Amino acid sequence: MSILADILSTVFERRYRRSGAQDSRSMTELCTDLLGNPGEMSGGLLARLILDRYADLSWDEKRAFFAFLTDHQGVDPGAVRAALDAYEAQPDKASYRTLMAAAEPPRQELARRLNRVPGATGQLVRMRADLLRMIPDNPEFAMLDLDLRHLFMSWFNRGFLVLRPIDWESPAEILEKIIAYEAVHAIDSWDDLRRRVQPEDRRCFAFFHPAMPSEPLIFVEVALTSAIPGSVQGLLESGRDILPEQDARTATFYSISNCQAGLAGISFGNSLIKQVVADLSQALPNLSTFVTLSPIPGLARWLADRNETLEGADATRARQLAAHYLTQAKRGDGLPIDPVARFHLGNGARVEAVHADADTSENGRRQSGGVMVNYLYDRDRITQNHEKFAASGTVAASSTVRSLAAAAAFEDA
Amino acid sequence: MSILADILSTVFERRYRRSGAQDSRSMTELCTDLLGNPGEMSGGLLARLILDRYADLSWDEKRAFFAFLTDHQGVDPGAVRAALDAYEAQPDKASYRTLMAAAEPPRQELARRLNRVPGATGQLVRMRADLLRMIPDNPEFAMLDLDLRHLFMSWFNRGFLVLRPIDWESPAEILEKIIAYEAVHAIDSWDDLRRRVQPEDRRCFAFFHPAMPSEPLIFVEVALTSAIPGSVQGLLESGRDILPEQDARTATFYSISNCQAGLAGISFGNSLIKQVVADLSQALPNLSTFVTLSPIPGLARWLADRNETLEGADATRARQLAAHYLTQAKRGDGLPIDPVARFHLGNGARVEAVHADADTSENGRRQSGGVMVNYLYDRDRITQNHEKFAASGTVAASSTVRSLAAAAAFEDA
Amino acid sequence: MSILADILSTVFERRYRRSGAQDSRSMTELCTDLLGNPGEMSGGLLARLILDRYADLSWDEKRAFFAFLTDHQGVDPGAVRAALDAYEAQPDKASYRTLMAAAEPPRQELARRLNRVPGATGQLVRMRADLLRMIPDNPEFAMLDLDLRHLFMSWFNRGFLVLRPIDWESPAEILEKIIAYEAVHAIDSWDDLRRRVQPEDRRCFAFFHPAMPSEPLIFVEVALTSAIPGSVQGLLESGRDILPEQDARTATFYSISNCQAGLAGISFGNSLIKQVVADLSQALPNLSTFVTLSPIPGLARWLADRNETLEGADATRARQLAAHYLTQAKRGDGLPIDPVARFHLGNGARVEAVHADADTSENGRRQSGGVMVNYLYDRDRITQNHEKFAASGTVAASSTVRSLAAAAAFEDA
Amino acid sequence: MSILADILSTVFERRYRRSGAQDSRSMTELCTDLLGNPGEMSGGLLARLILDRYADLSWDEKRAFFAFLTDHQGVDPGAVRAALDAYEAQPDKASYRTLMAAAEPPRQELARRLNRVPGATGQLVRMRADLLRMIPDNPEFAMLDLDLRHLFMSWFNRGFLVLRPIDWESPAEILEKIIAYEAVHAIDSWDDLRRRVQPEDRRCFAFFHPAMPSEPLIFVEVALTSAIPGSVQGLLESGRDILPEQDARTATFYSISNCQAGLAGISFGNSLIKQVVADLSQALPNLSTFVTLSPIPGLARWLADRNETLEGADATRARQLAAHYLTQAKRGDGLPIDPVARFHLGNGARVEAVHADADTSENGRRQSGGVMVNYLYDRDRITQNHEKFAASGTVAASSTVRSLAAAAAFEDA
Repeated sequence: MSILADILSTVFERRYRRSGAQDSRSMTELCTDLLGNPGEMSGGLLARLILDRYADLSWDEKRAFFAFLTDHQGVDPGAVRAALDAYEAQPDKASYRTLMAAAEPPRQELARRLNRVPGATGQLVRMRADLLRMIPDNPEFAMLDLDLRHLFMSWFNRGFLVLRPIDWESPAEILEKIIAYEAVHAIDSWDDLRRRVQPEDRRCFAFFHPAMPSEPLIFVEVALTSAIPGSVQGLLESGRDILPEQDARTATFYSISNCQAGLAGISFGNSLIKQVVADLSQALPNLSTFVTLSPIPGLARWLADRNETLEGADATRARQLAAHYLTQAKRGDGLPIDPVARFHLGNGARVEAVHADADTSENGRRQSGGVMVNYLYDRDRITQNHEKFAASGTVAASSTVRSLAAAAAFEDA
Repeated sequence: MSILADILSTVFERRYRRSGAQDSRSMTELCTDLLGNPGEMSGGLLARLILDRYADLSWDEKRAFFAFLTDHQGVDPGAVRAALDAYEAQPDKASYRTLMAAAEPPRQELARRLNRVPGATGQLVRMRADLLRMIPDNPEFAMLDLDLRHLFMSWFNRGFLVLRPIDWESPAEILEKIIAYEAVHAIDSWDDLRRRVQPEDRRCFAFFHPAMPSEPLIFVEVALTSAIPGSVQGLLESGRDILPEQDARTATFYSISNCQAGLAGISFGNSLIKQVVADLSQALPNLSTFVTLSPIPGLARWLADRNETLEGADATRARQLAAHYLTQAKRGDGLPIDPVARFHLGNGARVEAVHADADTSENGRRQSGGVMVNYLYDRDRITQNHEKFAASGTVAASSTVRSLAAAAAFEDA
Repeated sequence: MSILADILSTVFERRYRRSGAQDSRSMTELCTDLLGNPGEMSGGLLARLILDRYADLSWDEKRAFFAFLTDHQGVDPGAVRAALDAYEAQPDKASYRTLMAAAEPPRQELARRLNRVPGATGQLVRMRADLLRMIPDNPEFAMLDLDLRHLFMSWFNRGFLVLRPIDWESPAEILEKIIAYEAVHAIDSWDDLRRRVQPEDRRCFAFFHPAMPSEPLIFVEVALTSAIPGSVQGLLESGRDILPEQDARTATFYSISNCQAGLAGISFGNSLIKQVVADLSQALPNLSTFVTLSPIPGLARWLADRNETLEGADATRARQLAAHYLTQAKRGDGLPIDPVARFHLGNGARVEAVHADADTSENGRRQSGGVMVNYLYDRDRITQNHEKFAASGTVAASSTVRSLAAAAAFEDA
Repeated sequence: MSILADILSTVFERRYRRSGAQDSRSMTELCTDLLGNPGEMSGGLLARLILDRYADLSWDEKRAFFAFLTDHQGVDPGAVRAALDAYEAQPDKASYRTLMAAAEPPRQELARRLNRVPGATGQLVRMRADLLRMIPDNPEFAMLDLDLRHLFMSWFNRGFLVLRPIDWESPAEILEKIIAYEAVHAIDSWDDLRRRVQPEDRRCFAFFHPAMPSEPLIFVEVALTSAIPGSVQGLLESGRDILPEQDARTATFYSISNCQAGLAGISFGNSLIKQVVADLSQALPNLSTFVTLSPIPGLARWLADRNETLEGADATRARQLAAHYLTQAKRGDGLPIDPVARFHLGNGARVEAVHADADTSENGRRQSGGVMVNYLYDRDRITQNHEKFAASGTVAASSTVRSLAAAAAFEDA
């Protein structure tokens, strides 16, 4: 597609392109011109120029650019108020159009116009990643971010996403991104990657957007197993026996990674799990159990806040503490403190089992003393679990987990 | 994808699906529930149910549905005003979020949620086609239409569209739509279609959206010729000689058709011409001239309003009148009356030549006495033409056309 | 690929190409040169030139070309005898190589060298179609044909063929060939075609060879039905109800057509049925019955030879005569007279049922008085049926068909 | 495709498959049965069984299998002689058919029947690789090898091969084979591979056969450069500047590797170079020079035989010796001793330049003292060079190389 972008400029508007590098207009002038340009004849070139310029900006220049968008391309309260008065006086097409136009900040239209050129979507996603890094120090940029997020929720609407299997036949340029983006259990080499995507008892799926065809948005790694596994190192060891796929009864989701920092807050995980469960059920009718093997990222910290530790705890004690934490430790809004728990419980899963010594990596030791958890996606309970959780924060858990939690609670008391 | 939709429902939420037909909730209740449902677990099923129900509604029921969206899912001026006051008092992330939420009518979010299920995009486009047919009798629906159009402009952003060649290797299900949607020079059979897409001196290109992969959005038919042609029947005749593609010097765009009534007002034509010119230039470096052979749909009517007629006019007189009409006949806003002229001149083309007896079909005779026009896309002038036209309505025309127009004007006086 | 052929000539060997049209060498000289040319540097151009020349030959010139290949490019018995003597005297690599070379007529190597250029395979298949038409008047060409058939059996080895579904998404250039090649129940329009490939209860599959990607070799049309059908007009009628695919229990093969006259004698039908049964079983596990609805092309003629006729026969009598003919009428080699019966019985099917008034077309009336037959492919019996048929000509038939045949035989006596 | 093979067996002939593992027949019985089985109904299963069995044979068992094919599936001289007599007495279709049948060893038909099942082609290629390894110790197997080679030349006919670019978007399973098969300049990691296929001034192309879609047959690596390069380490260094592709004037073929030991003696290199030159010329019209940077594998050994060495030789002397060797050192048949020289000169290239210190790897030092050579493919001379070389062994060389060779010859004398 970038070839086409080049051709377009070559053929059509040499004048702009040629002078692009030396174009004396500032970024703010270019943006103002793009917004003032109703047609598309030169809009594409302007958009390309702005995006190319942006990529070359220094960090401070980017900050200045965002400040310009924040300060000068936001809504004009006076205009909104006038439009609102007119609309209330006579609510018709003309007054509604004026109101809608006034209530939408120009920077949203600017982003849409930038998005007209090939490759722009990915560039805008990266732009938001820059923006998100600056917000802690520039909280006023949060308004601009809300606008971008609003647009991205339209552009990355679930109906536009495509699920693709990732396997050893996938393009290397996709696979190297899987290596780079794996956020839960690091992939340390191409051989490690191969062990996760090539054997018939391993699967990987990712969502893609048609405008970013070589950039996965989110991916999940799945192990097909006979029973519910209780150790991630067991799943990943290099010499293990391969299970013939028709013998698998359990699909274990052992890693889910978001790939695009610039799409933070736009949730794909729920849809991904849902569709992968559906696709695997269709392809492998023998599968009867869909479960995760998940980290418990907040456990050690939460215990530390309570002067508890997993160091020296035996397996039973470790599992009790984890069960307690997962089912009882809540935030102010009544939802679990643990972010992974919130995600899966919110999807309608339940806490099925906890395992000590399940993640012996340094990171696993540090965050949860090596304890991991299975969340079970039981098709017959998923809606009910989800609804109770959404309504009242009720955490669904197996009786085993409830007993462990109760034992911990008892000692805790 | 529709298979997947079925699977999803089968696997996950049998309860909803099974009861879908007898679900006692009304459309308005379903929409309210979908908006009230924050997660996606059951949202997909609700969306599917609403879209399926909609497809079965009678015309009057659809009208009632649109009335509900117009009356009950619009903006609440009081809420907007309150949010505006709060934002002005303290413009920060929280107040901005509240303002943006208040200023966006809930029916926009409803449409986004409906769009989460496979196939929804096409169904929503068809829904808007229904809506547009009702607006003349229900002008209050225009507000709802502005909201849908606003969303569609995001979803059908130029960056998301894909250009595909249409030829004799294209799927029959696409080709039959080309036959159905051709709006300028009707295609009367598969053989007629084949003559337009199979020979090496004929090309056809269409824009597609990834979420509607078997529905062309707009397409253009191109004839590769040695010189600029002056008769559409000549281009389409069945026994003609085929020109080897490397001998072509001129690419003639002789038909552009929008395919989706539900995408009215979302312009693709400009981008389509631009990209087809770019692609053809790249593929066939010998091409030096890019031109249209276009109808003049408003000519006869405009002459009739002036008690003029093309009946009995000789070729010279017919061409003078056409040249005059194209270059001089303006609307109140200073732009040409003729819609096809507005389109191509707005793109930066110029009026290159007019031809009598160029379209001898009944429709051609009726609308313009058989006269047609070539608009020339001259790469070196296109930006300049566009800018003058946009700024002052200046119509670019060849000296021949200007002379013809002047002669007509003289007699006219 | 033809573009590449052009490029090759353009880039590499302008000299040959330029002079191709006026190349003064005869076809026989060109062939001799191609055989004498060990490398590939100019061989490709020579091959292209020969194939292009061939396409322009008159019928008489083609005959002369085949006569040259028959008379001058066959085996040399003296050389074979000498090589055989040497091989018997000392059977080693060198003598074996010489023997193999002597025993293979040069025209086989010529065909292989012609086949090196893009598109050659299809041209050679068409060349054999010409040859086959000439053999009745030129029986000596049968030797050349044996050589081509020998090569084609290697080139069109089952392992190289690709099965593709043919549906309404298939390219028009493929679909128009399905219309053209349908040999059993003519397809009279694109609408008729659409009725056979688009509904969910209709399927079509074809074998392709990678070197002839837009030319089907053989195709089969399948109707998915609840029960075994007894009328082809019933299957093909335009207003019929569509059966949801998951409700289908029976797959009926109602038409199998070979597409390439030049591949006569190279059987694909057996493999095609076998693979389609396998694929459909996989895709639609509810299917339990695989059956044909087949013509009985030799029935009326065979009866006429016995002074019998189906005219005026009632349905019972017609079915008795058909059952008798299918199960009892044999050739000298003990196999059934009817060619369609030989094909399906040889594949291991059995005669399941006969139906009067099953094909009311003019052709159906003429060849079999409208009677048709179902051959049943019963997976549990197919090998056993095949082996008995191959060993002793035993015709497997249902008890109903055997009873009908017996009744006919009784009256016949 | 292997899935389909499984299905076929599952659906159709459970009997065979079930008993496959314990089938008591020997390999020779299975082969005899396959040859005796005229139809395909059970032939596919037999073929699959034979190929699966073969894969599990020990080396000695494979040797016994080849001995069986050599001794018992060859030609029968008596039968050939009888058929020859009959053919000479009356040369007609029947006698010719008998002669051809007698003159072809049954093992050829056996191989064709084995090749009917999915995946067989690759398995047969690997079988021949085994065979070739045994020939030195079992020279009588050379006859069997001639038969396999004969078949493979039909199956791998140039017209059936497909050229595909290999780049960073290629499937990992293809790329890992490129790493494994690189035979000239070893690829030591995925990063090294990426440097050879991802930058815009690097290209790689491979031939594939449709029946072995994930197995490259041969591939070539190309560097796009401004001038003719004189050092392979320069081409491969990791930190080098990337040349924009439109600035390239020279395409340098710096590595060609055959991938399939089982296809030895079936030449693809000539066609590969030819088509890559054609494709690159088309894609990058600015390219004016096509050249190799090639090793001189026999130089050091040849010098050693003459008590000469490159050790201690200065660059001028090294180049003189290399030029002399390449242009003067001939075999008994008058062709160059150096195998790489024979290949490129046979293709019509000329010796353009020699470079000292051009390959500083250990292997480069050992085989040619680090000297490398450029062979130039000059489109205007290629046919002429090829023909002179083929006719009289004339080595085309630039005047510089001729001068260097002459100087060496002088000192040599």
